[in-house]
Order: sequence, then C-alpha cells, then structure tokens
Amino acid sequence: MIEDKNQQRTGLAALGEFGLIEHLTQNIEIKQPSTLTGIGDDAAILDFKDKKVVISTDLLIEGVHFDLGYMPLKHLGYKAVVVNLSDIAAMNATPTQITVSIAVSNRFPVEALDELYDGIKLAAKGYNVDIVGGDTTSSQKGMILSITAIGEADAEDLAYRNGAGDGDLLVVTGDVGAAYMGLQVLEREKQVFQVNPNNQPDLDGYSYLIERQLKPEARTDVKAILKGLEIAPTSMIDVSDGLSSEIMHLCRLSGVGCNLYEEKIPVDPQLINTCEEFNIDITTVAINGGEDYELLFTIKQDDYDKIKGNPNFTIIGHLTQQSEGTHLITRANTKIPLKSRGWNALSNDEA
Amino acid sequence: MIEDKNQQRTGLAALGEFGLIEHLTQNIEIKQPSTLTGIGDDAAILDFKDKKVVISTDLLIEGVHFDLGYMPLKHLGYKAVVVNLSDIAAMNATPTQITVSIAVSNRFPVEALDELYDGIKLAAKGYNVDIVGGDTTSSQKGMILSITAIGEADAEDLAYRNGAGDGDLLVVTGDVGAAYMGLQVLEREKQVFQVNPNNQPDLDGYSYLIERQLKPEARTDVKAILKGLEIAPTSMIDVSDGLSSEIMHLCRLSGVGCNLYEEKIPVDPQLINTCEEFNIDITTVAINGGEDYELLFTIKQDDYDKIKGNPNFTIIGHLTQQSEGTHLITRANTKIPLKSRGWNALSNDEA
Repeated sequence: MIEDKNQQRTGLAALGEFGLIEHLTQNIEIKQPSTLTGIGDDAAILDFKDKKVVISTDLLIEGVHFDLGYMPLKHLGYKAVVVNLSDIAAMNATPTQITVSIAVSNRFPVEALDELYDGIKLAAKGYNVDIVGGDTTSSQKGMILSITAIGEADAEDLAYRNGAGDGDLLVVTGDVGAAYMGLQVLEREKQVFQVNPNNQPDLDGYSYLIERQLKPEARTDVKAILKGLEIAPTSMIDVSDGLSSEIMHLCRLSGVGCNLYEEKIPVDPQLINTCEEFNIDITTVAINGGEDYELLFTIKQDDYDKIKGNPNFTIIGHLTQQSEGTHLITRANTKIPLKSRGWNALSNDEA
Repeated sequence: MIEDKNQQRTGLAALGEFGLIEHLTQNIEIKQPSTLTGIGDDAAILDFKDKKVVISTDLLIEGVHFDLGYMPLKHLGYKAVVVNLSDIAAMNATPTQITVSIAVSNRFPVEALDELYDGIKLAAKGYNVDIVGGDTTSSQKGMILSITAIGEADAEDLAYRNGAGDGDLLVVTGDVGAAYMGLQVLEREKQVFQVNPNNQPDLDGYSYLIERQLKPEARTDVKAILKGLEIAPTSMIDVSDGLSSEIMHLCRLSGVGCNLYEEKIPVDPQLINTCEEFNIDITTVAINGGEDYELLFTIKQDDYDKIKGNPNFTIIGHLTQQSEGTHLITRANTKIPLKSRGWNALSNDEA
C-alpha cells in the first residue's frame, strides 16, 4: 500500500466493533422508497410492493481479487459496489440497496476504512442505492469485503441468461478488454516501482485503460435506454469473466450456438495501441480479458432497426442452432471455436 | 482440524470455480413460494408480494469467529446459517432465503467443502429456507464465510429494537450462558489434546453446553408462539453478544432503563455445575456469555397473564424510565449497573 507516512493512524481497537460500525455508517442517508429502515436493528426492512426482488452477492479477498499495491482503498470500495450492481443490471433490474461487510487485520487504521467507506458511499450515492446493513469485523490476514446487492424490477422487464433463441442478435454495450489491459499496465508499473521506488510512473496514454480497471461503472443506464427503444432483451448477462466466457454461458443456458464476428468487437483505440506495445493480440484480450462490467444481451432480429447505429450498443454476432457450436469468425473469415478462458483463468496463468 | 488421514482429498483446482459452485449447489431444492429463481443467473429473483422484506448479513472468519480445531465443518456450516436466521427471527419475521459465500485456502479439499455445505443444507432444510445464491472463491488464509439471510413479515408483526416502553416486561426465551461455557469446555479439551493427543476427551456431563456452542438453533419458532398467545412484542433483539449487552442495546434505542433480576435469569443445571467446576460466577457467564441465539423481547404489562408459566419464556425484569439507568438486581438485593461486556469483549480477554 502506498502510504503517506504522516497520515493519522487510529487503531481499530480504539473504537471497538460497535463504535467502528457507528463511525463508518454515520451520515448514511436513506433515499430509496423501498427502504423502510436501514442500519441499526437486527435486520433492515424493505418493501418492494408488487415488484420482483433480485439479489446477488460477492466476496472479495485481498491478494485474490485485488492488490492494494495499486488499488487505492477508495477505488476498491467503489469497485466492490459496482461489481455487485452490475449483476443487478444484468437482470435488467434496478439496484436499490446494498449491504456491506468488511473484515480487516489490525494493520489497517480507522483512516484506511474511512477511505474504503468513502468509495463505497460514493458509489452508493452515484447509483442511488441505500446502504442498509453489514458487518465489520477483524480478519487474520488482509482485507475481505462481502457485498450483497438488492434490486427491483417489474416481472416483464427481467432478463435471464436462458432466454436467447436461434437467430437472435448478440449485442454488447460499450467496449471490452480495456480493464484487463489496465491491470497489465498497473502490474508493469508496480514492478518498475519495486525496482526503483523513485521512478515516477508515466501513465499518460493509458488513462482510459486504468480507469476501466480501477473505477469501472455498472451499466445500470441500459435498462432505461432499452425501454426507450422499446426493446425487450431475450437474454442478458454482465461481462465480468470475459466476453467469450459470458457468450458461452448464455449459449449453454439458452441451448443455442453462436457466431461472434471478430471485426465487430468494440475496442477502444487506447487498447489497440497498448496491445501493440505489449505485443499481445487485441482480440485475445477483448474476448478473454475480464472485469469490463458491460452488458451482453440478445435481441430479436426484428429489433435490428431500433438498435443499429445506436452509440451505446454494438451488434457483435448472432445466435445459431446449438448443434452449430459457438465460434469466433475471424477477419480472415476463419471459424475458431470459442473457449471459456475467463478472468480467473488469466489470473491463474500469472500465479 | 481433526482429520481422518485416510479421507479422500480432491484439490479445489480440479473442479475450477464454476465446477465447484455447480458441485456444491447441486440438488439444492427451492421450496419457498417467494423464490422465483435461485442459483444460476446473475441474481436470484424473489417475490414477496405485499409482505415486508427483512435482510441481514454476517461475515465469519476462521481464527476470529470459529476454530476448526474443535468446530467440525458440518457444524460450522449449520451454525453460520443459524446465526443469520436468528437475526431474522429477532425482527419477529420468518426467514425465507439465504445466500452463501465461501472463500477457502487451498489447504481445504473439495471433501471439506462438501462437509461444510452439508451443514449449510441441513440448516436450510430444517428451517425451510432456500439457498438462492452465493460466491465461491479462494482465500489467502483460512476459511471465510459470508451469509445473507432474507425473511418476510406482515408490517404489523415486525418487532424493532426501539419499541420498548417504561413499565414493559423484559422476557427471554430458553436459557442463557450455556454456549459460552461450552466454548470453555472445548478450549480446555483442546489444550489437553495438545499436551496428550492420545487422551480421549470426556465430554459427558457437558453435552448440553457443547451442543449450544457447536449446534445452536435460531428461535424461528417464537413468532408463531407469540401469535398464538396474541402477544405483540413491543421490542425484540437476539442474544448473540450476551444478555447484558443486548439489554443495553434495547434500552438505549428505546430510551428506557431496566431492572434485571439475577434470580430470574434462566440457566441450565449443567451450566451451574460446570461454572462451579471452573470456579466462574454463574451470573457473570449468564449475562456476559454470548452466542445463545435466544430472543430477548419486551411486552406490555397487560400481557403478563398470557405469558406467565409458559415454559418457552422467562420474565427476567421490567423497564423503567431512562433516568433510572440499567441495573442488575442481585439475589442479595444489591443494585449493580449493567455493563456491556459482550462476546467480543470476552474473546479479547483471552487473546
């Protein structure tokens, strides 16, 4: 952790468990009409009336899912929330509440948790979700974060992973691969820093990639855009483990095959430049790099006219019968079977 | 961890993350009418119609909250669920779903996770809650469990921590202190085992205490009992951190004082015998020992006749004006201020 040596350090024991929870959760505002009571009782109380409720949870472990060597605590807090809201967005639902559990070893002062919580609160505010509960405790080693996100939707809006049909169009929001390359840049800088701590990192030219890694956003805006276009997605998933892996999930659960077109895959110019610099194949990164938190979904062919040319979306392929398999059609018009090499697989390669 | 050296050990990497989740969550049945879809999509989908939804979450860390030296994995899984259901019961609500996130280091084989999950499934079945989601990942050290429990209730049934009034009666279910003494017995046996591994522990005479520590139950039955008696509790909390600590929570949040009568505090005969053997004051254990997972609640004085003599409940005191403070009235009729020495404080004394 890059530390300001003059910073104030208040030991966690100084506040105690209840004091710490009170300290961290002070000034938390409740804004969602579905939140009746938040933190302070044995459980939070919510009221969704006739809406369906969606719920998703994630466990993030220091050294496995994040490295505080290049992940500032505020960014970590922000990202931990976003990752969970992305799962709610992937149901075509609207996130409404989160619970936040944190365990830290005594190497972390209260000020570090404040920073982490600042990021959590910033994300909660930006995405208009209420922090309604959680747990704060000590760990034997490092930092552990567990976030549960809750959302709501009308039944007819919900999008599942298993609804895609033969002939549907495959669509992705934004661009892919940048978060993974951002991680590569940060890892390189960390190694440079370890060799020469006085070396100032030169991160110009990588700003988009690094932001995608350190401060990803959940596409909670997509639901309203699709509604405005009068498009009901036939299936949906978020791109957390890599485009290829997610496509294979959708296809397996929907019982369909897929042709993904290499030339259609949306990538940022900065990704192209950096892949060239690192001598890595762009398409490999775009389809296997994870943590994009974009949405991957399918629509009926009839909806093509509604979506074509929309800057939020790129049609990257179409679904086929299951027997045809899942393939990448390269620029050279070669058909290569898609492989499920997700984010975890990539991480393992480096371990 | 007490291990059978001949047991099968399948490395976690053999299954991979998705394979492991699939393996652990196979055969999970959905029974609650409020569960529309469980595991398998980006999020679970629930429908509570006009019920209020309650949600609570807990993070359990090996070496902080549990010691696998004397906590069998199946018991751990069971207890981790129970602890969370207890929070739902403490809202006078009915638990309906849980999510389960697990992180383990590679010292755990798949078979160990199976055992843990067996306990989780057993608790889910026994309490009629659906396992609707979760996360399985690796940790740098030890085992980490994060469980979120969801429940439902009609608005008028919900009981809060802040509803107690001056003159209300203070009631506790079951008995208190046994789980804490169970832990003391187990710690003593662990030390004996470390000195002489061939020594067979003699746990006769401590079976109730040990069961309270290793296999506590959540009082999800109390809601129906109170309903049957036509009693609406004015406030409620579960006894996880110790009776004294919970009474002080209720009083502070409700703006009242309390007189707790030492002679009324329900304790098991086994607790009395064991406290004498360990030369520990029984009342100290009964009011400060945690993890009882009984319910502490308050009722109107008018409801006295409905509850008196009921074997499920013991009236242990009454509430006063806040200015009178919170006191224990001893058998010798001395008035001693209650102190908030919860489970955590006790643990710290030993660390």
